[in-house]
Amino acid sequence: MAKLRVGVLLSGCGVYDGAEVHESVITLLALDRAGAEIVCMAPSADQLHVIDHRTGDVAPERRNVLVEAARIARGAIADVDEVDASALDALVIPGGFGAAKNLCDFALKGPDCTVHPGVARVVRAVHAARKPVGAICIAPTLVARLLGTETPTVTIGNDAATAAAIEKMGARHRNCAVDGTVVDAEHLLVTTPAYMLAKSIAEAASGIEKLVGEVLSMAARS
Amino acid sequence: MAKLRVGVLLSGCGVYDGAEVHESVITLLALDRAGAEIVCMAPSADQLHVIDHRTGDVAPERRNVLVEAARIARGAIADVDEVDASALDALVIPGGFGAAKNLCDFALKGPDCTVHPGVARVVRAVHAARKPVGAICIAPTLVARLLGTETPTVTIGNDAATAAAIEKMGARHRNCAVDGTVVDAEHLLVTTPAYMLAKSIAEAASGIEKLVGEVLSMAARS
Repeated sequence: MAKLRVGVLLSGCGVYDGAEVHESVITLLALDRAGAEIVCMAPSADQLHVIDHRTGDVAPERRNVLVEAARIARGAIADVDEVDASALDALVIPGGFGAAKNLCDFALKGPDCTVHPGVARVVRAVHAARKPVGAICIAPTLVARLLGTETPTVTIGNDAATAAAIEKMGARHRNCAVDGTVVDAEHLLVTTPAYMLAKSIAEAASGIEKLVGEVLSMAARS
Repeated sequence: MAKLRVGVLLSGCGVYDGAEVHESVITLLALDRAGAEIVCMAPSADQLHVIDHRTGDVAPERRNVLVEAARIARGAIADVDEVDASALDALVIPGGFGAAKNLCDFALKGPDCTVHPGVARVVRAVHAARKPVGAICIAPTLVARLLGTETPTVTIGNDAATAAAIEKMGARHRNCAVDGTVVDAEHLLVTTPAYMLAKSIAEAASGIEKLVGEVLSMAARS
């Protein structure tokens, strides 16, 4: 059987202004251990901002989402605008504020957010081809924005304000524990809270590893 | 039994100019899953340089090792100069070029390298207290520089030039497969090649997870 080819959509490198590093690496490790072929991608655009991760302050710098995400991907990463979505068997979107600041602007505009066009194209194409999409942490907000009209069910854990915003975009939110996932078998979506709830990296890994397994099972059947 | 408190010495965030991201996160996950308390640390100093991880080119920027390492540590990181080494039960040093560019200058000077003074202080103190030190990928060169006079045995995989440099610093080098470790029980050192040899993240994880287990076993006995 051919390897499943799974896109991993990164949003920079660092929880406060990019892709959450632990969530991203745990995703890559789980995919590799399961024998999947990994296709990392990110949009080539300025980050919303750069945060000093030691102090939490905004730093007077500009960084590019794709260039920083390449740190997580060890250089093996594609511009999302150049990705052939039809070659993917599944897509996983790790969290971190970058998912809500760089892939879309949910962090600024909540349910009125817009999604980076290249990101929207890939997510919609994978979904339209009846291939599964996994979204971790805050990334389900982006999925809700793009696919809300289909009323999919997702989780970001149990944060009431974020859950309300997700429902305003048309999706259903279901509360979920850190080691669990919400599987929407009809819409081929798997979501898990990870660092929306996790108090440690092992807690985050418990849900992400489950998500990766479920996404790969769906991809093998689809 | 009290939790073992394990220092993780980071050198930035990114394989080409800092700490190797996968190796660092796999180390943190293995330590957390084993119930250890993690103390991340890094030197507060300019990186040797900044590398665009997409192109491999040097970028005209300055970044601080500690501030960038905080991306891997989600902000929970100490300046190595302020670490109480006597409170540590063990120390693990992930690899990446940062270990040979920022923690010491092995990448420039080979066996004539010098080590950042705060890094040298912590490594020497943990070793002198008969607590184990684990070093991953290229990081054993730093250990050889500091402890070479004791003739410890380490591995960086099988790269002949690096092995020769290690022996010039007084240490012994033993070749090792990517899923193996070299354990020097006399000097309480554990080393593994990781991305010196690994062709995938799962390969890197195989040796690192073994190393973490052996370091924690030594720490529990010491």
